[in-house]
Amino acid sequence: MKTGYTIGCDYGTLSMRAVLVRLEDGAVLAEHVYEYPDAVITDRLPGSEVELKGPGWALQNPDDWLDALCTNVPAVIQEAGVNKEDILGLSVDFTTCTVLPMDEQGNVLCQLPQYRNRPHAWPKLWKNHTAAAEAEAFTALDAEKKYGVLDDYGFRASSEFFFPKLLKTLHDDPEVYNAAYTFMEGGDYVTYKMTGELNRSSCLAAAKAQYDCSGRGYPPKEFFRDLDPRFENVVEDKHLGNIVTIGQRAGYLQPEMAEKLGLKAGMPVAIAHADAAIALIGAGVTKPNEITFIMGTSTCHMMTAETKEQIPGMFGVYKDGILPDCYTYEAGQSAVGDIFDWFCRRMVPQSYFDEANARGVAIQKVLDEKAGQIPVGASGIMALDWMNGNRSILQDADLTGMIMGLTLSTKVEEVYRALIEATAFGTRVIMEAFQEYNVPVNKIFACGGLAHKSPVLMQIYADVLNAPITVTAVKQTSALSAAIFAAVAVGQADGGYDTFEDAVAHMVQPPKCVYTPNPENVPKYDQLYKVYRAMHDYLGAANSPMKELRRIQRENIH
Amino acid sequence: MKTGYTIGCDYGTLSMRAVLVRLEDGAVLAEHVYEYPDAVITDRLPGSEVELKGPGWALQNPDDWLDALCTNVPAVIQEAGVNKEDILGLSVDFTTCTVLPMDEQGNVLCQLPQYRNRPHAWPKLWKNHTAAAEAEAFTALDAEKKYGVLDDYGFRASSEFFFPKLLKTLHDDPEVYNAAYTFMEGGDYVTYKMTGELNRSSCLAAAKAQYDCSGRGYPPKEFFRDLDPRFENVVEDKHLGNIVTIGQRAGYLQPEMAEKLGLKAGMPVAIAHADAAIALIGAGVTKPNEITFIMGTSTCHMMTAETKEQIPGMFGVYKDGILPDCYTYEAGQSAVGDIFDWFCRRMVPQSYFDEANARGVAIQKVLDEKAGQIPVGASGIMALDWMNGNRSILQDADLTGMIMGLTLSTKVEEVYRALIEATAFGTRVIMEAFQEYNVPVNKIFACGGLAHKSPVLMQIYADVLNAPITVTAVKQTSALSAAIFAAVAVGQADGGYDTFEDAVAHMVQPPKCVYTPNPENVPKYDQLYKVYRAMHDYLGAANSPMKELRRIQRENIH
Repeated sequence: MKTGYTIGCDYGTLSMRAVLVRLEDGAVLAEHVYEYPDAVITDRLPGSEVELKGPGWALQNPDDWLDALCTNVPAVIQEAGVNKEDILGLSVDFTTCTVLPMDEQGNVLCQLPQYRNRPHAWPKLWKNHTAAAEAEAFTALDAEKKYGVLDDYGFRASSEFFFPKLLKTLHDDPEVYNAAYTFMEGGDYVTYKMTGELNRSSCLAAAKAQYDCSGRGYPPKEFFRDLDPRFENVVEDKHLGNIVTIGQRAGYLQPEMAEKLGLKAGMPVAIAHADAAIALIGAGVTKPNEITFIMGTSTCHMMTAETKEQIPGMFGVYKDGILPDCYTYEAGQSAVGDIFDWFCRRMVPQSYFDEANARGVAIQKVLDEKAGQIPVGASGIMALDWMNGNRSILQDADLTGMIMGLTLSTKVEEVYRALIEATAFGTRVIMEAFQEYNVPVNKIFACGGLAHKSPVLMQIYADVLNAPITVTAVKQTSALSAAIFAAVAVGQADGGYDTFEDAVAHMVQPPKCVYTPNPENVPKYDQLYKVYRAMHDYLGAANSPMKELRRIQRENIH
Repeated sequence: MKTGYTIGCDYGTLSMRAVLVRLEDGAVLAEHVYEYPDAVITDRLPGSEVELKGPGWALQNPDDWLDALCTNVPAVIQEAGVNKEDILGLSVDFTTCTVLPMDEQGNVLCQLPQYRNRPHAWPKLWKNHTAAAEAEAFTALDAEKKYGVLDDYGFRASSEFFFPKLLKTLHDDPEVYNAAYTFMEGGDYVTYKMTGELNRSSCLAAAKAQYDCSGRGYPPKEFFRDLDPRFENVVEDKHLGNIVTIGQRAGYLQPEMAEKLGLKAGMPVAIAHADAAIALIGAGVTKPNEITFIMGTSTCHMMTAETKEQIPGMFGVYKDGILPDCYTYEAGQSAVGDIFDWFCRRMVPQSYFDEANARGVAIQKVLDEKAGQIPVGASGIMALDWMNGNRSILQDADLTGMIMGLTLSTKVEEVYRALIEATAFGTRVIMEAFQEYNVPVNKIFACGGLAHKSPVLMQIYADVLNAPITVTAVKQTSALSAAIFAAVAVGQADGGYDTFEDAVAHMVQPPKCVYTPNPENVPKYDQLYKVYRAMHDYLGAANSPMKELRRIQRENIH
């Protein structure tokens, strides 16, 4: 009988959520959310007049992350009413690739007065897409010279990746690039602030920095040199070494930070993880050929399999990424909840808000209900869910959203439903890619905010995919997973667990519910999916009118 | 020196506008607008629970039209302060084809208690699109059996045409069809209510009922029989004869109506006209190869030429339609202002309305201003302006609107500008069809609400078309034209004019302004137009994904 607890901290796009979890049975005793005051910075640097020119910017304020930590951790301890001596470990998961330039003293450059007004001195959030040209150069170089760097990444670099983001800084603000002692993933940065040790997560490095855990490490010098001679020694110059395998300890809590957090100094802190990848542990995946959808502002699809296939548009394939002896495939949709939020904020008239206010519910609930009443296919509207580009399977951040079927009778809720359906069709494209490459999917888990709060959306997904979807017991599956990782980093001898299997067996509870397909809707969605796929293939192609429009846009933004 | 006046009544989609005009110089002495209380009926019959099932319905209430007449005519007389003895004539123009079933006593069937709850007993507005299948059958029959009925109508029947609308009534509610003594165009109906004579306008019959003024008359019996055996004698059965040529008198004002309107009994009433076709007279077109855009809820493009070419997607080509010895080509876009209104009503959040209210201006003005500040091409957004189908050159009411280039940063005003641009590109497609078929356009006139109130829109049109656009002096060009037609029907001997040339020379004033293309924007719009044209051709094709979506929709509407 275990008596201790661990804390998991899940850093999402707009907020950080901490959970305090009982090691014995995984019960979440307390949960606290901190919303970042500066949220996502897209137009103007905080507290300044500096505008972010051109499209694609998405920055964050590192102070928000540390404030979140120092708020949430004391809050869950207080709420749970446990003794700090019984809290045995802590772990962080983080959006990725969120990357920042740091000096040797541990300051993010934007925290120094001399760099405060320089956009590249700020952390670039995962969905910062300014490095499109660098990503293209990366892809083209690998294809031309056959370095094989992208073999496990669908043969395409994304502007969301680590090195394109660094290269963009080198190109656009070499002074900031040169001033950086190192570049850190957000998860490694927060962990470093707790332990004082400059370690990096193997999971983050493999997911977004093309780090090969089974031997080669980072891409070779020659590859970096061919991208830009100044980039040849980026790994050494920017101190990117010290990779720590997931499940291990990143270090121990420093006294100063322990005091701020209300924890024991010297407590083990586990190495950080990617917020999406980690979630399948908390979902309870223990076998190959099971997929977990982590559905929030964006969706990540984490798939387990015993074989390694080169499926187009995968963001990465890692051996031993999470399940032992299993490959983890990562696919994704770069905007899901974000699309609904954008639509609510920018396109929904007041009468819908009035109804939501009168009923005391969220606007999304009103739209969900109205959308849920529309029969499948009856609105005649179809969308492409590319408002933040397409991650899988086209891997093209340059693609944009589309809505067709609009008429003068079109209602807001019809467009809203079409947006939900578009994200479901986008998921189906990914699922079909797995099938096509002989990686069968036996079971689907879903977690994250959308899975728990929108039954209309989940039923549409089950109908579109024609497969049951199991929704996890805990909504904040990533935070729970972080607590499980912390439990493994603590280890059996110190009151935790030695293996993931053991930790998962004890700490993951039975599912919340299962959505099963409505047989009446399945053939209708089969028809609609063909239309989606036709538009997907036409507009997603290399020289499509959509791509041309984007090219013209680039010429005309001043 | 002429001392009299005429009144022109312009029946639009949402309101009727009357003008009282001085015969001497065309000065508009008074103007009055009456908005139809029941506007456009799309969901439910007025004062009842009867829902209009399925898409495409657009009905009107005939009481609104007569109330408009009895309100506006006395209002302009009072405002102008003229003597009723000096008002020499009146003429009506009307949206077309707006068609209604009438009994022998002159009641619209929906005005009788026994038919009040029957949708087909109500006037079908021009943009009622329920007769899509009938229009398709019409087109297919003419193509198969080579009747030549559609030779002057781009070889395609529209669900907006007269006979498809009648046939739809026969198919869906034969009782209403059989109960109708006749079917009337709205303009002929209002004129009949004034004169008591069952005459019909050659202009309306030629424009929408395939009536050949130069000899053949209506399509042959065999054609109607092949459509439906019950339809063989539609012309005789439904008393569609008594065609009166435009510029002629339809009859004389009956005493009862004269009293209601405050006019002299026995005053000549000119035969009615199509609201769009007529406008070129008021715009001042006097030569071939000049085009007039009548820009309101929809846009009509009235083009004059000495030759008759079979240009695809023309709504009609009529000899002597308006200018003597000239063909009039009618092309159109089935929604323009309607798209902006739909967008404002359905998709614009409260903050924009708050700004408009605070400044005391219309929401469109706020959006126009914000849209006007966006550099050409910079938003990366493109739309197809088919929210009410495509009239020219695709002639397909089944097409729908599309917006692409959406991103999470997309702002409402960017979409709004893209919608304006889409309507301009749609116009360019029509202009290029004229060029391609060797019908050069030497001069462009614009009139109607949009031309007068949106400089941003007009500049975009000039830039997209790379041609100057002359905006007419009088905003309500159609109402002025009706007054000019009335002047010709009055005739020189009774104080009017004998010819159109003479009337136009005296009654049309110099233009309001001319928009000239901005040379910097022209090449950018050339690039963007290529993208529009690619989407136009792809989605407008017979088996496109857009068409398939519509087919699926039809199966799923209950």
